[in-house]
Amino acid sequence: MIRIFVTGGTFDKEYNELTGALAFKETHLPEMLRLGRSRVDASITTLMMIDSLEMTDADRALIVGHCRQAAEARILITHGTDTMVDTARALAADCGRTKTVVLTGAMIPYAFGSSDGLFNLGSALSFVQALPPGVYVAMNGRCFEWDKVRKNRETGVFEAI
Amino acid sequence: MIRIFVTGGTFDKEYNELTGALAFKETHLPEMLRLGRSRVDASITTLMMIDSLEMTDADRALIVGHCRQAAEARILITHGTDTMVDTARALAADCGRTKTVVLTGAMIPYAFGSSDGLFNLGSALSFVQALPPGVYVAMNGRCFEWDKVRKNRETGVFEAI
Amino acid sequence: MIRIFVTGGTFDKEYNELTGALAFKETHLPEMLRLGRSRVDASITTLMMIDSLEMTDADRALIVGHCRQAAEARILITHGTDTMVDTARALAADCGRTKTVVLTGAMIPYAFGSSDGLFNLGSALSFVQALPPGVYVAMNGRCFEWDKVRKNRETGVFEAI
Amino acid sequence: MIRIFVTGGTFDKEYNELTGALAFKETHLPEMLRLGRSRVDASITTLMMIDSLEMTDADRALIVGHCRQAAEARILITHGTDTMVDTARALAADCGRTKTVVLTGAMIPYAFGSSDGLFNLGSALSFVQALPPGVYVAMNGRCFEWDKVRKNRETGVFEAI
Repeated sequence: MIRIFVTGGTFDKEYNELTGALAFKETHLPEMLRLGRSRVDASITTLMMIDSLEMTDADRALIVGHCRQAAEARILITHGTDTMVDTARALAADCGRTKTVVLTGAMIPYAFGSSDGLFNLGSALSFVQALPPGVYVAMNGRCFEWDKVRKNRETGVFEAI
Repeated sequence: MIRIFVTGGTFDKEYNELTGALAFKETHLPEMLRLGRSRVDASITTLMMIDSLEMTDADRALIVGHCRQAAEARILITHGTDTMVDTARALAADCGRTKTVVLTGAMIPYAFGSSDGLFNLGSALSFVQALPPGVYVAMNGRCFEWDKVRKNRETGVFEAI
Repeated sequence: MIRIFVTGGTFDKEYNELTGALAFKETHLPEMLRLGRSRVDASITTLMMIDSLEMTDADRALIVGHCRQAAEARILITHGTDTMVDTARALAADCGRTKTVVLTGAMIPYAFGSSDGLFNLGSALSFVQALPPGVYVAMNGRCFEWDKVRKNRETGVFEAI
Repeated sequence: MIRIFVTGGTFDKEYNELTGALAFKETHLPEMLRLGRSRVDASITTLMMIDSLEMTDADRALIVGHCRQAAEARILITHGTDTMVDTARALAADCGRTKTVVLTGAMIPYAFGSSDGLFNLGSALSFVQALPPGVYVAMNGRCFEWDKVRKNRETGVFEAI
């Protein structure tokens, strides 16, 4: 059994046709799991719907608290890419020994035709089932331990450090 | 380093607008990896482009031979879903002790909007990196050992046996 | 007020993931009009859901009868491309003096990412509003009088004769 | 022969995955016409790539000048929806008696899966072929004379006045 926590990020952004701005409505996770014909036993909880550049320490504490209290030993978190590594660090201090926590996101909103979201979701959902306890970032088809990765802002690619 | 062998299957079927039939042209794998912004070190070889219902023992022997001779210890195979388990069995007898081989496919061609292909590719590419030697089938977000899975033809879902 | 008659054709074909065959379910017309944010006053009636190569004289008589009896003076018909011109001819003999009838279709099913269906629907819906009484075929962004067009089967393009 | 002038607007906006903002790159018009399998004889000129809320009087004068000098009697203009009617008015004073000019746009960028762009392009391209000289706005599957339409900003729909 997997627990999925949704926090927003590019993954879930949509185009608001009245304002012309990108904004959040509902998460696309259920639709994406349906499209992937996923039969993984998973329950989805939306914790927040925010851009990860706007995520505060209080938001991170809330995410950490939910991961700590979750009954599941395997947790997938969808998250904006810009501060994904910061949240991974906060989680590592608390949940990293007992649970497998995988964070993922997208460079392009799922609602766009060219999104990497569905690929990343398939990837993260697989790593979270296969890896031992620890906190990981799954992006670009790869999976990194939380303290061995950074987002390269020039290229948009997650790379080993 | 991952080796990807393409054998065809629903994954790669396209609509031929002159004949109105589904047919194979080139594999979509490179485009799909680009869309997923994959940075996994992988090389792709197309072994055949066929419907898995038409796959012969000679075809399977060819796939097994390529897996045996591959320099890589981790191999991903795209394959039609109908006889995926048969090919997994043939591989298990030969490569299952020394290599991690993951087979995946799609229920809907990638070229269709509603395809599960990109999700499955992200999933299989992740399992092949994370799992120990063995032959596996990755479908529906899950990963099964080759002798513990079957395709349920009424539902189209891969399930544990 | 526009009347839309659905007869099937490539337009509405879908991929049946259990059989691997292309088949008809429900028409996509309402979804397509919603996607196009259409505010044209139109009502949709499905007359049949068939491949136009399988259309019989009785089927054509049924289409002609519905066009004759329709209260609307402007009628759009979705139709397979292979015999679209044959049906146009049958309609011309009966309805061509009093009504504007436009037939359209698609080379690629709407459910595929690469479909021309949405473009053709926008086109046909516009020609049917703008043109005087007559029977027309709207394909490839153009509109032809029923007796001045043929489908080129080598190229898949409708061209003037 | 149709002349197409591109001015930008939602139609052509893309998601910049490094900045997370919507921005312009190249126009999608050629790709869209290819997808629609258009065989209309048309040439495309990009005049500007801007949000129509940022369009100045000088920009409008430039558009009007190009329409006046164009050799073609039928002109299609892609344009942001917010000030499309303003540009139509500027055109009417100058070109409305001798040329058929149709403006269209999109509520959702073409690069999004849910875009109305392809439908609108099919529609506008058809109206510009079928209508007599005048300046028109083609949106929502309908076509309005320039002085009989407004965009309802609450609903995003173009309606008759």
